[in-house]
Amino acid sequence: MKISHLQCSLCKTTFSPNEVIYTCPHDGANIDVIPDYENIQQTVDFKEILSSPRQSIWRYLPLLPLSDPGFEATPLHRVGWTPIYAPKQLTHQLNVPSLWIKDESPNPSASFKDRASAVVLAKASQEGVRTVVVASTGNAGAATAAMGAAIGLDTVILAPKNAPPAKIAQLLVFGARVYLVDGNYDQAFELSIAASKEFGWYNRNTGYNPYTTEGKKTAAFEIWEQVLLNLAPEQTLNIVIPVGDGNIITGIHKGFKDLLRLGWIEHMPRLIGVQANGSAAIADAWQTNSHEIVPVQANTIADSISVNLPRDGWRALRAVWESNGCFVKVSDGEILTAITSLGKAGIFAEPAAAAAYAGLVKGINDGSISRENPVMVINTGSGLKDIKACMQAVAQAQIVEPNIQSLRKFI
Amino acid sequence: MKISHLQCSLCKTTFSPNEVIYTCPHDGANIDVIPDYENIQQTVDFKEILSSPRQSIWRYLPLLPLSDPGFEATPLHRVGWTPIYAPKQLTHQLNVPSLWIKDESPNPSASFKDRASAVVLAKASQEGVRTVVVASTGNAGAATAAMGAAIGLDTVILAPKNAPPAKIAQLLVFGARVYLVDGNYDQAFELSIAASKEFGWYNRNTGYNPYTTEGKKTAAFEIWEQVLLNLAPEQTLNIVIPVGDGNIITGIHKGFKDLLRLGWIEHMPRLIGVQANGSAAIADAWQTNSHEIVPVQANTIADSISVNLPRDGWRALRAVWESNGCFVKVSDGEILTAITSLGKAGIFAEPAAAAAYAGLVKGINDGSISRENPVMVINTGSGLKDIKACMQAVAQAQIVEPNIQSLRKFI
Repeated sequence: MKISHLQCSLCKTTFSPNEVIYTCPHDGANIDVIPDYENIQQTVDFKEILSSPRQSIWRYLPLLPLSDPGFEATPLHRVGWTPIYAPKQLTHQLNVPSLWIKDESPNPSASFKDRASAVVLAKASQEGVRTVVVASTGNAGAATAAMGAAIGLDTVILAPKNAPPAKIAQLLVFGARVYLVDGNYDQAFELSIAASKEFGWYNRNTGYNPYTTEGKKTAAFEIWEQVLLNLAPEQTLNIVIPVGDGNIITGIHKGFKDLLRLGWIEHMPRLIGVQANGSAAIADAWQTNSHEIVPVQANTIADSISVNLPRDGWRALRAVWESNGCFVKVSDGEILTAITSLGKAGIFAEPAAAAAYAGLVKGINDGSISRENPVMVINTGSGLKDIKACMQAVAQAQIVEPNIQSLRKFI
Repeated sequence: MKISHLQCSLCKTTFSPNEVIYTCPHDGANIDVIPDYENIQQTVDFKEILSSPRQSIWRYLPLLPLSDPGFEATPLHRVGWTPIYAPKQLTHQLNVPSLWIKDESPNPSASFKDRASAVVLAKASQEGVRTVVVASTGNAGAATAAMGAAIGLDTVILAPKNAPPAKIAQLLVFGARVYLVDGNYDQAFELSIAASKEFGWYNRNTGYNPYTTEGKKTAAFEIWEQVLLNLAPEQTLNIVIPVGDGNIITGIHKGFKDLLRLGWIEHMPRLIGVQANGSAAIADAWQTNSHEIVPVQANTIADSISVNLPRDGWRALRAVWESNGCFVKVSDGEILTAITSLGKAGIFAEPAAAAAYAGLVKGINDGSISRENPVMVINTGSGLKDIKACMQAVAQAQIVEPNIQSLRKFI
């Protein structure tokens, strides 16, 4: 796709794509990438997309800000086109007309973040970048390391020291240079910006690099193909999304904005953001109808959405306002319950991912989410990413002696 | 597919499918499921399979021993059709004409075992079974628990107490009844057989239930579609497979036997089994040209292929003999090195899965595997399954203070 221009999400100043790399030079706000919609309308027939043989995000190449990346038969080409499940028992329990879970765990590094890393690193590679740095609580780092390994880019990951071991193991096995920052995510974030200035590294940070949302918007395109095209036009889909920095909900919003602007959908689905009680800066702003996002001291079991200062909070608020959605806050206990609910449908979610389902249950019960609408929940990452947390959701297994007498006592 | 008959793999006695449930009543050997090939030839056009819209093992339904299982939009319908990667750097390092890695980690429970569990549990469900029991070091159990959750069957898992925590966490989250056996895998295996007799549970054990190989053979069908159809007929593909009980290599062999018998391929690929030095009962028999498999005291980091008495050893030997293949043995150190080699291509393998690549490297270097042939390596499970072991493959990450001065010292 051709980019028309970049635009500050706050002050609306426009820039050429060569003029600005990261955030707005005036106010530091996040930058929106504006496609050349006229050009897309003239050159792309959406039916060609629907019949693409590519079972990945690359079926949407005409809507992505880069040329064909190549790297066929690598993990870069396996990102996206993730399954949707329709668990009958949960649908029945919630008493909604339809419930779909979009499961992001089959992605190469087992989380939603592969979408952003695939697009950003492929684009970086096309622009001659050699080294990419990212600050990450884990998933964005693992995705960056995996995609870097897949296409031969060096990656440097700055992760907070307390990131779950599985995520750190992934980084190291993928061959990234890993530095564990003796501080929190927010400090790792600042350090990565300083490092990209000092060492000339390209920065992929969520809520900083404008192109992460261009990767994440592919989830909206898949929901369009997998669900929206089969819904009656008057039905509004509720999409429930876990929110930390706010970049995933912003990316999904961007995808639907693209489709709306192109006339390929008639109205925007309702975007519902879920934050953990212990990391709810954006939800708090929404609940007080404020544009100002006040940092918190984050404390939740859901490490992937644990953040003091959300880096894409303003655009996350905008996504919810513009889609007539809402925010829901959930406790760690509700998140753990959601892990077992999803597990009983054969879906293993990490805490941050289960937070979305927890938010749906809570929103349905307190009336903030209508029972009348079909619902899509995004399961953003595999439970294998954070075993220690998931183990808190279940009782310990019984230990038996290796004989039938011992087993019989428990049956 | 219609089943023609069952047949003991050792004494060749034939049985009707209603006559025998598990192993041969005469000698206890594993049972082969023999399709009604004439019926398949008359009713199935392989081009219909090649153009199936199903991106899963269910594209091969005409070759599977059950009717359409239903359960659309559940994880059961997402098993298989896993990606193959062609990592250029590893191909170059090994100096082979082509190298493909078939990555089984995108399966719903992140391992190859979903193939067997999907077919066995769907078949069990069709036959009115309510409860399925399995003994497992982890992956078969997780697959059974996941598929049971997906389709509403009760599952009972008997795992050795020392199984990796990630695998136990999966079992519990999927809602299985989990009993940790204070003993090894072999004791859990015997206990599961006693339990299925006592409580009337259907037993899914690897190397005991005849239908596991009918699920596992789908990997051969995918290799046929993804690779063999594009190879020149005179090229023989080497397929490198990690071996514990011997059931995966037996299943893949069965798939190619089906294709050969149907005339859909012209010759058998060469099957190469890899065992860990510390769990090499089958490879030892092969190396001494013996039909007798002598149990060992298993001790290897690769828990998924750690077994004293392989339960499908005879058929694994047969697979290698009949395909003109070989066995290779690898050390735990070689397995750890393979984890990092695959990681640098963006593929995260658990130790048992990396053993296959380690075996390829070793076999190429010692001449037991020819450099002349294209190669396929099966990556049977995700590295997220066993973080502790994978961490032994890499150096620890550096810890830095959250400032550029501290980071600068390491760059």
